Amino acid sequence: MTDVKGFFYPRSSQGSSSIIPNPPWFYSGDLLTVEYRTNPERVAELLPAPLELAPEDPGAVALIWADWQSCSSSREELLDPVRSQYKEAFVVVRCSFQGRIFSRCVYIWVDKDFAIARGLHQGYPKKLGTMWQTRPHAFPQASPRIAPGGVFGATLAAGDRRLAEAVVTLREESPTNGFVNGHPMAHHRIYPGIASGAPDAYAELISSGAADFEGGPSWKGDVDVKLFESPTEELDRLEVDEVIGGYFRQVGVRWDGGATLATRSEAGWDAAAVSA
Amino acid sequence: MTDVKGFFYPRSSQGSSSIIPNPPWFYSGDLLTVEYRTNPERVAELLPAPLELAPEDPGAVALIWADWQSCSSSREELLDPVRSQYKEAFVVVRCSFQGRIFSRCVYIWVDKDFAIARGLHQGYPKKLGTMWQTRPHAFPQASPRIAPGGVFGATLAAGDRRLAEAVVTLREESPTNGFVNGHPMAHHRIYPGIASGAPDAYAELISSGAADFEGGPSWKGDVDVKLFESPTEELDRLEVDEVIGGYFRQVGVRWDGGATLATRSEAGWDAAAVSA
Amino acid sequence: MTDVKGFFYPRSSQGSSSIIPNPPWFYSGDLLTVEYRTNPERVAELLPAPLELAPEDPGAVALIWADWQSCSSSREELLDPVRSQYKEAFVVVRCSFQGRIFSRCVYIWVDKDFAIARGLHQGYPKKLGTMWQTRPHAFPQASPRIAPGGVFGATLAAGDRRLAEAVVTLREESPTNGFVNGHPMAHHRIYPGIASGAPDAYAELISSGAADFEGGPSWKGDVDVKLFESPTEELDRLEVDEVIGGYFRQVGVRWDGGATLATRSEAGWDAAAVSA
Amino acid sequence: MTDVKGFFYPRSSQGSSSIIPNPPWFYSGDLLTVEYRTNPERVAELLPAPLELAPEDPGAVALIWADWQSCSSSREELLDPVRSQYKEAFVVVRCSFQGRIFSRCVYIWVDKDFAIARGLHQGYPKKLGTMWQTRPHAFPQASPRIAPGGVFGATLAAGDRRLAEAVVTLREESPTNGFVNGHPMAHHRIYPGIASGAPDAYAELISSGAADFEGGPSWKGDVDVKLFESPTEELDRLEVDEVIGGYFRQVGVRWDGGATLATRSEAGWDAAAVSA
Repeated sequence: MTDVKGFFYPRSSQGSSSIIPNPPWFYSGDLLTVEYRTNPERVAELLPAPLELAPEDPGAVALIWADWQSCSSSREELLDPVRSQYKEAFVVVRCSFQGRIFSRCVYIWVDKDFAIARGLHQGYPKKLGTMWQTRPHAFPQASPRIAPGGVFGATLAAGDRRLAEAVVTLREESPTNGFVNGHPMAHHRIYPGIASGAPDAYAELISSGAADFEGGPSWKGDVDVKLFESPTEELDRLEVDEVIGGYFRQVGVRWDGGATLATRSEAGWDAAAVSA
Repeated sequence: MTDVKGFFYPRSSQGSSSIIPNPPWFYSGDLLTVEYRTNPERVAELLPAPLELAPEDPGAVALIWADWQSCSSSREELLDPVRSQYKEAFVVVRCSFQGRIFSRCVYIWVDKDFAIARGLHQGYPKKLGTMWQTRPHAFPQASPRIAPGGVFGATLAAGDRRLAEAVVTLREESPTNGFVNGHPMAHHRIYPGIASGAPDAYAELISSGAADFEGGPSWKGDVDVKLFESPTEELDRLEVDEVIGGYFRQVGVRWDGGATLATRSEAGWDAAAVSA
Repeated sequence: MTDVKGFFYPRSSQGSSSIIPNPPWFYSGDLLTVEYRTNPERVAELLPAPLELAPEDPGAVALIWADWQSCSSSREELLDPVRSQYKEAFVVVRCSFQGRIFSRCVYIWVDKDFAIARGLHQGYPKKLGTMWQTRPHAFPQASPRIAPGGVFGATLAAGDRRLAEAVVTLREESPTNGFVNGHPMAHHRIYPGIASGAPDAYAELISSGAADFEGGPSWKGDVDVKLFESPTEELDRLEVDEVIGGYFRQVGVRWDGGATLATRSEAGWDAAAVSA
Repeated sequence: MTDVKGFFYPRSSQGSSSIIPNPPWFYSGDLLTVEYRTNPERVAELLPAPLELAPEDPGAVALIWADWQSCSSSREELLDPVRSQYKEAFVVVRCSFQGRIFSRCVYIWVDKDFAIARGLHQGYPKKLGTMWQTRPHAFPQASPRIAPGGVFGATLAAGDRRLAEAVVTLREESPTNGFVNGHPMAHHRIYPGIASGAPDAYAELISSGAADFEGGPSWKGDVDVKLFESPTEELDRLEVDEVIGGYFRQVGVRWDGGATLATRSEAGWDAAAVSA
């Protein structure tokens, strides 16, 4: 029997064709976050069993843009940056499972296939999109400063339609980078059954978060944010009822796996013995 | 409990955000196929358990470019063609499982996220790439005819590197469009375990093929084909030892699910009771 | 002195690096055309000296999508189709110069650099965009037929914003493919002066059209068309007041240069002695 | 007569559709430079009249990657960064005109249409390509430091082929960022004649450079560089005979026009009265 190698597909004899390498994975990047409140019913409708609404501030939403450089332990991707750099925009809400609070990414768009594949593994529901966010730079000729008055814009499009845009004007350093994306993630990993009309062949609720995390100062500021409709998205159902704040932070992250929270059998969801 | 909808992720309240709609899926497209022989050991090393080499002509390989328009039963994607048109290039070998012969896609590149997601469901190990193939057209000013002497080129690149290119010069109609991709597909569907270093959380061997198929005349012709090396691919290990032939065919396809061939438990692979 | 070679930049010792090869250029493609009437003042405001409004039906506009395969006399681009295939969407109005009627492209988006460069030469004001149009195919599983009831959609986006979309439902063969794009083109070729605030360094009014043209049957049909606003476009100023019709046609074209209609000196525009 | 507005095409009634806004243009970005020597004959063959080889070190070449954020005086592009951010890779040599030394960009690839249009104005022979260069970041998890041992990679591809790649390992601060790209640029601006086989309709030799320039420390380091062949490029004719050095620098630039060095009449090149 052949022993094919590779963390994920396509597995091969040498293991170098896998769409993603073995974890741990490393990230350096800039986060632009917009937090706001929507109708909690619109959050609840995105939380399948066995998840429930968070008990406090259940309608809080974070819309986050991230501009990443990433690599595996070999760091070889950094020297061929088409394999290293990517951008993403994602929407996070909070939820509750067995009395614990989790963050949960309900929508996410990225611009590289390796990012899609990492998302599959981690339970992020990634599609392709085009994301842009203003970059800080050492010289201000065409760049904001990370300082009071610094203005950062961000846009998201998919399927040749603009889905969201935001402008954050920094005002002051902040003790937090927001609170919605601050918990371990609770994500479903699913595989539809292969037979026509079959139920899911596989469903698992997992938890994961950064194995290591470093961050610079968080900045808070004013926000202008717009969501647009699209026939293939439901992002605009999470209407902006009240802006909480806008944030900017530079971070470094190591990710190295997660834990099963629950698996689904024919009888329903069974909580895992090993907690996250 | 919330009942989220959608064939695949992200599942939502309306079901319109799913990266792919419910099958059946429909396809109209052009196939440019290059068949050749490589060292059978190079095919064997890509066949994990419980698969084995095909008994006859085990080193046969098909390198196929396809230029597709596709849609769901609603046909709405056809009117917003960014959601409908995509290109792909893929590599097919044959294998044997329980005495039956299957085709198997070992490498594949596409240029849309919905194609990646359909591939996840069907077990095609899809990455993003850029594929081009010459199109036939009613007017020959800048187009070959589907006729003797018609010349069709095709290229494949990924990660900003060219991986393969081929030129097929049509000579005559052919009773077949090749034989390597002519069987039901046998594909693994896998999900790596979420914990660091864990074994696969899920592994299934499935079979699928067209639920309905229509095809125009097959054309056969001369072939010039080249494979190039890349640090993230192993395509060039399938060296071209002997060209079998080049083919061109226009086809229409309906796909509507497949069947489980085997599932993996801790004890190994268990053949499914339901055959494909 | 060095004799650099190449039709356009960058000129080099071998002439193979030019962004476009020597004309003639050859095209095979499908045209989806939407004709409508807007306020003639909105057309007039896009006609700089020495052009004037067309005397009859001056508010007629054609919004055209084209899906092209193209090549030079060598036809080598057809075998490396990344250099051959491109899509475009463009807006045509009519105008009058010295008593003759011309067509004029006022806005155009393409998806390849060689198409931008050909446009510079021909006076088409090309930007990059993403264009999609439904393709006819021999098999109808995921394709309309070129026949009564055949439905073709088309979309245009640039800068991550959708700018236009149309759906044309074919009803019957038509004696014409519309009339707005049926004249020789009258285009300005301009080069802004290099000094800060300087007037144009070069301005020329040229005429060009197909050196040879072949076309299949024209089809006419019903139209649904929408234009969207963008901060970097003025397409939506050409509001759709009344739809004239929608058309589909497959064509083959050879283009081999044009003629100078007028050049601008400090005294104004001087009509050229050689007519188009 | 209509007074259309806009710095460059398409000119329109409001002036907002121009592919580029009025200068001045502002830039913040990172430069990764590889300098090397090639056979001076290969440089000379890229210098058309009235330019000549630089008298000292005439075979020196700079291969430069730049990762830019850019804007006009309004700075509005910074908040819609799809209109602001772009990457480029370009090749610079030196030349002599009337006894003065100039830098000259002989090949350049960018990834946005506004960058192509700015290049047309400035005489940079821009094509589309895909360029990547490692980014420094505040956190080193997936990023080099701008410090001894910091490793930066860069790649260039066009037409689905990789054209160049380099790795620079920083060793120490440097008094210069190299010398090849340190002079005002001498560029041709050309417009081929519209008639078939006609000579150029317009040809001008211009000079331009930064109106204002700020730069951080320059870093020098070791270089690994490779050039690859392509049927549509002649970059690989500029063979790397001897590496001079690799450099990294962050800069801020304002550009506000240039000056005509010479114009071409039927009698040849006429030097302009106004010097750069």
